[in-house]
Amino acid sequence: MRIDGRDYRTIWVDADGRRVHVIDQALLPHRFETLLLLDCADAARAIGEMKVRGAPLIGVTGAYGLALAAWRDASDAAIEAAYALLLATRPTAVNLRWALDRMRALLLRAPQSARADLAYAEAARIAEEDIAACEAIGDFGAELIRKAARDDRPVNILTHCNAGWLCAVDWGTALAPIYKAARAGIPIHVWVDETRPRNQGASLTAFELIGEGVSHTVIADNAGGHLMQHGLVDLVIVGSDRTTRAGDVCNKIGTYLKALAAHDNGAPFYVGLPSATIDWRIADGVKDIPIEERSPREVTHISGRAPDGAPVEVQLTPDGSPARNFGFDVTPARLVTGLITERGVCAATEEGLKALFPDLAS
Amino acid sequence: MRIDGRDYRTIWVDADGRRVHVIDQALLPHRFETLLLLDCADAARAIGEMKVRGAPLIGVTGAYGLALAAWRDASDAAIEAAYALLLATRPTAVNLRWALDRMRALLLRAPQSARADLAYAEAARIAEEDIAACEAIGDFGAELIRKAARDDRPVNILTHCNAGWLCAVDWGTALAPIYKAARAGIPIHVWVDETRPRNQGASLTAFELIGEGVSHTVIADNAGGHLMQHGLVDLVIVGSDRTTRAGDVCNKIGTYLKALAAHDNGAPFYVGLPSATIDWRIADGVKDIPIEERSPREVTHISGRAPDGAPVEVQLTPDGSPARNFGFDVTPARLVTGLITERGVCAATEEGLKALFPDLAS
Repeated sequence: MRIDGRDYRTIWVDADGRRVHVIDQALLPHRFETLLLLDCADAARAIGEMKVRGAPLIGVTGAYGLALAAWRDASDAAIEAAYALLLATRPTAVNLRWALDRMRALLLRAPQSARADLAYAEAARIAEEDIAACEAIGDFGAELIRKAARDDRPVNILTHCNAGWLCAVDWGTALAPIYKAARAGIPIHVWVDETRPRNQGASLTAFELIGEGVSHTVIADNAGGHLMQHGLVDLVIVGSDRTTRAGDVCNKIGTYLKALAAHDNGAPFYVGLPSATIDWRIADGVKDIPIEERSPREVTHISGRAPDGAPVEVQLTPDGSPARNFGFDVTPARLVTGLITERGVCAATEEGLKALFPDLAS
Repeated sequence: MRIDGRDYRTIWVDADGRRVHVIDQALLPHRFETLLLLDCADAARAIGEMKVRGAPLIGVTGAYGLALAAWRDASDAAIEAAYALLLATRPTAVNLRWALDRMRALLLRAPQSARADLAYAEAARIAEEDIAACEAIGDFGAELIRKAARDDRPVNILTHCNAGWLCAVDWGTALAPIYKAARAGIPIHVWVDETRPRNQGASLTAFELIGEGVSHTVIADNAGGHLMQHGLVDLVIVGSDRTTRAGDVCNKIGTYLKALAAHDNGAPFYVGLPSATIDWRIADGVKDIPIEERSPREVTHISGRAPDGAPVEVQLTPDGSPARNFGFDVTPARLVTGLITERGVCAATEEGLKALFPDLAS
């Protein structure tokens, strides 16, 4: 998608076919820089420090991390070590495990001499599949937006966190329908939850929407319920870090609160997700999805741009007040109007998902 | 209540009996300074710039603002002008209008020469009544906490924004029960919503709890639903800026989302409020309470303490992203377990309120 009128992806391979470039998302929206990943440790660090983030992009970065590992040392031991290192970076998103499992299975059964080439080709395939899935999500979701359109005003869509192209390779999940609708000329306006504590909405989603020229307004996470009570939200679209086979949706902390408000006010609540985020092994998301707890410093401190333009981190809480930082919550399927997947929109139920993905459901 | 072991109120009259001191709450938690109010314009500015905030304290500060005005010029015209100036500072809280109406009615029917003394005496009476009401709320609410106590762990209470002693003159509304329970030796732990955009939870509530030595943890506003899903919240207590006669509660933006989560998870949701916050004229809070919209800068920027200790405001959003900043939302009475008032706990219904306040209900 576009930044300053130029098209980008979030991750690409260097002309040498080996080194990997990513956008350093930790610096956005105030600075645009790319980062060069030279080995698997670089990839693991980029994921762990959230320089790349978002379930689909974490999966693709993990795949390229294994490719970088195989380039350096294609032995079984090196691949197993890289697999373990990468898997440990983020516990909640299921795409990472999915991509790493796929890569490892392929590599371990190939001759060592072929592994590096195979790994880069497979990582590229995962990236291309992700782009195709996101674009399809965009097309299916844009139809929902088109149906919500009224003559007299733009369709108001609320989104939480960043599930745009920066969370994937291109297009994004929750924002793909928005980009498709905007490019199709449907008048839309996006309410952007700032999404504390890391503010991926205020920084990344707002940054994306500026690049694509989509009308939007940043709000505090607390505001969504009020907007819905007053008819200012026509639909909610969010992404998913992991979806259970029963349709429970694990996504950025706070998503559940917006789903409750949407339900209470009759606003449709949709989740855009590629099938790679579905965890077919589990049904009950609240009980069975491990919720990453991150550093309390993300709550007690916040980074921004100082008046002189320099990035600075400021302390918000008094010395002596502890904080806790839960990264995700689970929205029960009963609050989800529909799941927008690369194969169409389905009910957030086991039957709905199985009907679209009979080949994946076990 | 205590700061660094010393007892404070939020507002007090100077030894000269005329000038008024307040704690400059805009500087907390990083700096403790007091502010001298020399005339009515100072009082209006302190309210408008949120150097004093919280429904009860706004009311008392408004009352002292009228006293400062009467000290300077006790004519009808001066009192009417001061009334209008003070009333325009904040539109949502009903205490301000209540206190100003009470002061104006008293002053306009008194001889001009007696007005200044009368005004200071009445403002002091309003302050003492508020303290007594808050202490009674504390006693009634502490009983609820005592009943929720289990042998094996502290009672986990979630609160939103700051409805502690800093929002009143002393004790506070939502936090009064917490202070009473803590002083009575009931083991408690408070989840403190940071409360974007102005972060009164992370700054003021956390600061208060440190001063009183109450165990607490600061969380992002997004986290409460997740905590409730996992049984980590035994009860929610919040304050109220305006309560309708039907029990709808207008409070800091985001309160409604916590009420929805409490309802969805069976956690009791209580509101601590002095009767001065009840607006007997209206029933439907969502329809009839005007919601203050504040500067978007409170969303796009945030203030904190830089690494060198200096206060600094940083920008969070990209240039070119607009923001909107709704100050309050309304929690429908159906989501409220009970109202904790200075006369006891009642259902959030017209019948419940009328039974406790037959003298006030019209």
